[in-house]
Amino acid sequence: MKIKVAVFGASGYAGEELLRILLRHPHAEITAITSRKNAGEPVSNVFPRFTGSNLEFCTPDVEAIAQNCDAAILALPHGLATEYAIPLLNAGVKVFDISADFRLRSQEKYKEYYNADHPAPELLKKAVYGLPERYREQLKNADLVACAGCYPTSSILPTAPLLAAKLVSPEGIVVASCSGVTGAGRKVDLPYIFPECNESLKAYGVVGHRHLPEIEQEMAAAAGLPEIAINFIPHLAPMNRGINSTIVMDAMPGVTLEKIAEVYEKAYGSEQFVRVLPAKRTSDTKYVFMTNTCEIGYNLDAHTNKVIVTSCIDNLTKGASGQAVQCMNIRFGLPEAEGLI
Amino acid sequence: MKIKVAVFGASGYAGEELLRILLRHPHAEITAITSRKNAGEPVSNVFPRFTGSNLEFCTPDVEAIAQNCDAAILALPHGLATEYAIPLLNAGVKVFDISADFRLRSQEKYKEYYNADHPAPELLKKAVYGLPERYREQLKNADLVACAGCYPTSSILPTAPLLAAKLVSPEGIVVASCSGVTGAGRKVDLPYIFPECNESLKAYGVVGHRHLPEIEQEMAAAAGLPEIAINFIPHLAPMNRGINSTIVMDAMPGVTLEKIAEVYEKAYGSEQFVRVLPAKRTSDTKYVFMTNTCEIGYNLDAHTNKVIVTSCIDNLTKGASGQAVQCMNIRFGLPEAEGLI
Amino acid sequence: MKIKVAVFGASGYAGEELLRILLRHPHAEITAITSRKNAGEPVSNVFPRFTGSNLEFCTPDVEAIAQNCDAAILALPHGLATEYAIPLLNAGVKVFDISADFRLRSQEKYKEYYNADHPAPELLKKAVYGLPERYREQLKNADLVACAGCYPTSSILPTAPLLAAKLVSPEGIVVASCSGVTGAGRKVDLPYIFPECNESLKAYGVVGHRHLPEIEQEMAAAAGLPEIAINFIPHLAPMNRGINSTIVMDAMPGVTLEKIAEVYEKAYGSEQFVRVLPAKRTSDTKYVFMTNTCEIGYNLDAHTNKVIVTSCIDNLTKGASGQAVQCMNIRFGLPEAEGLI
Amino acid sequence: MKIKVAVFGASGYAGEELLRILLRHPHAEITAITSRKNAGEPVSNVFPRFTGSNLEFCTPDVEAIAQNCDAAILALPHGLATEYAIPLLNAGVKVFDISADFRLRSQEKYKEYYNADHPAPELLKKAVYGLPERYREQLKNADLVACAGCYPTSSILPTAPLLAAKLVSPEGIVVASCSGVTGAGRKVDLPYIFPECNESLKAYGVVGHRHLPEIEQEMAAAAGLPEIAINFIPHLAPMNRGINSTIVMDAMPGVTLEKIAEVYEKAYGSEQFVRVLPAKRTSDTKYVFMTNTCEIGYNLDAHTNKVIVTSCIDNLTKGASGQAVQCMNIRFGLPEAEGLI
Repeated sequence: MKIKVAVFGASGYAGEELLRILLRHPHAEITAITSRKNAGEPVSNVFPRFTGSNLEFCTPDVEAIAQNCDAAILALPHGLATEYAIPLLNAGVKVFDISADFRLRSQEKYKEYYNADHPAPELLKKAVYGLPERYREQLKNADLVACAGCYPTSSILPTAPLLAAKLVSPEGIVVASCSGVTGAGRKVDLPYIFPECNESLKAYGVVGHRHLPEIEQEMAAAAGLPEIAINFIPHLAPMNRGINSTIVMDAMPGVTLEKIAEVYEKAYGSEQFVRVLPAKRTSDTKYVFMTNTCEIGYNLDAHTNKVIVTSCIDNLTKGASGQAVQCMNIRFGLPEAEGLI
Repeated sequence: MKIKVAVFGASGYAGEELLRILLRHPHAEITAITSRKNAGEPVSNVFPRFTGSNLEFCTPDVEAIAQNCDAAILALPHGLATEYAIPLLNAGVKVFDISADFRLRSQEKYKEYYNADHPAPELLKKAVYGLPERYREQLKNADLVACAGCYPTSSILPTAPLLAAKLVSPEGIVVASCSGVTGAGRKVDLPYIFPECNESLKAYGVVGHRHLPEIEQEMAAAAGLPEIAINFIPHLAPMNRGINSTIVMDAMPGVTLEKIAEVYEKAYGSEQFVRVLPAKRTSDTKYVFMTNTCEIGYNLDAHTNKVIVTSCIDNLTKGASGQAVQCMNIRFGLPEAEGLI
Repeated sequence: MKIKVAVFGASGYAGEELLRILLRHPHAEITAITSRKNAGEPVSNVFPRFTGSNLEFCTPDVEAIAQNCDAAILALPHGLATEYAIPLLNAGVKVFDISADFRLRSQEKYKEYYNADHPAPELLKKAVYGLPERYREQLKNADLVACAGCYPTSSILPTAPLLAAKLVSPEGIVVASCSGVTGAGRKVDLPYIFPECNESLKAYGVVGHRHLPEIEQEMAAAAGLPEIAINFIPHLAPMNRGINSTIVMDAMPGVTLEKIAEVYEKAYGSEQFVRVLPAKRTSDTKYVFMTNTCEIGYNLDAHTNKVIVTSCIDNLTKGASGQAVQCMNIRFGLPEAEGLI
Repeated sequence: MKIKVAVFGASGYAGEELLRILLRHPHAEITAITSRKNAGEPVSNVFPRFTGSNLEFCTPDVEAIAQNCDAAILALPHGLATEYAIPLLNAGVKVFDISADFRLRSQEKYKEYYNADHPAPELLKKAVYGLPERYREQLKNADLVACAGCYPTSSILPTAPLLAAKLVSPEGIVVASCSGVTGAGRKVDLPYIFPECNESLKAYGVVGHRHLPEIEQEMAAAAGLPEIAINFIPHLAPMNRGINSTIVMDAMPGVTLEKIAEVYEKAYGSEQFVRVLPAKRTSDTKYVFMTNTCEIGYNLDAHTNKVIVTSCIDNLTKGASGQAVQCMNIRFGLPEAEGLI
């Protein structure tokens, strides 16, 4: 038996990655891929790599599509998910949203960062945060999954166990991340043309990036605190895929590399998609390229008493589409790595 | 009248950049370029772009070369500068060293980071730190110039005025830098071949990088303190040239963007090679590519009370060879930008 | 039941790609991976992406390894295959060689291009050329497979059917190919470090490249001629993976785009790994990136009466490791695409 | 005394390169830079690298601008040059057009390739082709210069002397060129965003590219023939700057490498901006990066009797803006390399 999956917003990079994964997923069958712009065209018009497939883009007629799917993965631009999620949920379809629309539990934070009231606050409560290594149990019964974002995934996985174990202080955390250009989506805009990105590395969104409250929310949850404030500084780097996050935290008294190793072993020793490197090594985006793995390195700086952690993911796989499929596998009782190796 | 310049160690990337600059410098004449490996070969064998030139690499016969030059620029690997500098200085030649050999004023720090006693501690005292925007007056009479390193230049220029004006705390500073691959020199080693660097971004030297004490020394000097401790975390990024440093510092009470602007204006308003962007913008390596400029952006994060500064240089120009020529121009009373526009 | 596979020379890029494919191949089991340099180390030391795996490099003890494998894939440097192939074949192991050692049927040509007598001419006769779209039937019973090279695969697939159908002249063919840097292997040499390759595009091996006789041999075979002479001009391009070959041929009288389409349809209409684009379009390396597909575009230039064909493959997949596994699947009666989707 | 120069269409990549060159040109003074979109903005808004400059974009008010300039360089999109050139010429301004608008001497060819009558055929006659190494004498008195295109420059310089000397046949010439992405202009379009270009190499415009008739025109002129037909196949490569053209031609009887060397020496031995490599070597885009040089390599393939030539330029310098300045220097009696070293 195969899960019937509909992909909404399938013509972007996250959509392409979803198709790549789902087409070789042994227990998934794609029943619809939507794209307003490309409706009626074969998938190979937009992504020649899928020429063998006879999939065709259709308009996002939610009601009709809902009749013929068990799971819907939403790879839509920000702000559109609610309008799709409601009819899908009403029809009994499990919804996996790759956008940021349902990730914040606080309506206030949503308003602060998006300058608008959330269109469906009741869904915020219903949504399970789609980061399996942190919320696996809840995901097993989730109807609506707000898949963790790319920067957040690379920031939360390496820090949450350390915060939970009180090895690091929740105050004064600095996260400096670098992302490949697909992180900006398949956006046709001057800053993203090749000659503007090549030989260019720059910070952006230095204050108040929209991924910030999501990271703070999950770090606070891990630390058992109502709220924490950090600095998150994203950068654009001249590569297609990959995020490296370098995180500097105050070490709590008595912290050693051995203790960090223990905490990580306990948290991730049996995880298939987290790779903790031996102490003092650093993660590298190339080792997670087109994989669903998060690679973590850690070190301790005695002269400033800081724990320094690095973490790499592929922003389109573990940071988006791979994570959605991992969540879907969990929700439908499939082996978690199905389609992801 | 032209200054006669000898370049020692001219077959690496800093050497190539020196030649590019000096060959169009209206008041410099190259009298010798040394390379043990390429001695006897025309410069165009190693760098075809200089085919028009009739320069030829020679062995580094210091005594002989010293007879025919006013200035020597050393672009040698770490640890070799002393042996060249002494005879050159004895012959009255002004020496501009691009390596890190004379940058630390403290013998102890040198020993701590290089695991060896400094071979000529008296030269450490004699050397002037080659960062014109900070030490212009001293450079006018310097015999031995220890040109500032690439990461240090990008870290010190944006922070020193703020530290001196007490706008930021000297404690808890975090510097996260990304460098292009020429920063590693023209080194033939597995991690630097194209397929290993492309689509790769990673931190390295996370604890105890050799540029750390140099950065701390100059930040402490700016802050008027005997010593400070910071975190400096370099990364390798898939590009040829450029360093971006993102720096997070605690704001002192009452700091505003306007005050930061004022301090920068005072420090750099009349500098030819520092470009301070309007508030809230971020620097970009592509805008300093193959220039001698340091581009600085600044911002203030109210929710954590941090000043966030970004800074970009071309590691081979302002971070090495351009800086050496700028220092040389100052020492010889030439217009500072000669050859550098 | 799983095929037991040994990989000889597993620490290069073709080796890495083989492991990536075989580790998710449902009917293959890796029983040995050899590397003199890394013997005794876990695979993850060299390729962190395989951390989950407990594979370990071993020394290439052929006799012992032959006892425990059905298939051996040789990803060794040129000139070493014979010494491995003989004992493996004697032990009844099927051998798939990724090197060029057994690809030329003519000893004379071998001597001309390799400046040495072939060490085992009898194996040259025994070897089947490993290009499934041309030699599928022979591969079903082959003991020794000389997998087609990367440039040859991208040159032969688009031209063979046109030559066989006499739509193009076998005289005066020009092949201009561009390859990503992994095509040079995991070679640590100055021309391959990042700053030397980035922003660099250049031809090399313009006359007498070692892949030339292989391409000519197979074009001649397709044309039904004893021999033909072409121009093959490889270039190095700043990317990791991918070959684009652009091929210019004299059109025979009466050739039309429709006739070309027909011939391709007949040749490749039912092939899983050849994608022929609609007329007048051109292939793109990005659409075959990390796939086993060869993408072909074709056009007709009336003003010079030339057929112009473009063809893209991923040099490590269809150009090396993917092709080897495709051949292995055929030899062992498995579905041809197993492990390759 | 300085030449007053106006740049029309200064906000694209050719415009940026013109400003980079002219700002350090000792005998040029920029009196106007136009951009409809950016009129009223300081140049540093668009190109932060020029922050020091107080230039400001203005609307292209030709009549007014013509009052205050000796030379106008047009870096406009195709089809607009006539409307600017006429009033400028009437006002006695020397016009250097970087577009393709005046490059074809034949109105018929223009119509064939641009699907429109040329708006000012009399200007086609007046225009001198702006390739100094071929038309230096005519340029000295030209009022209107049609600067040679990027692909044409890289194709004509290496072939013209060989055709003129009858060392190669004018029939059956194949030119395969690869260009960096700035060759497409500063165009905001899906195919040019970073993730679409990176790891992508593809041919385009395989039949009937608009640079084809320009190349054929100049090759025919060199060969002393009314017309010739060649194949010109451009490719897009993942780099910012640079064109490599690889050219395959039939050798005429008796041609040797020595004869080719002689012909090149005679043609280019005293040229400052053409570098002919020793026999059998190949050109490399990185060695002409940000220079005005054309680097040429040549070889002879005995087994097919072909002369194979490779040629590299920087498409924005020798292929556009550098060439325009070189032509301007010639026209105004300045040293030809002024501003270009």
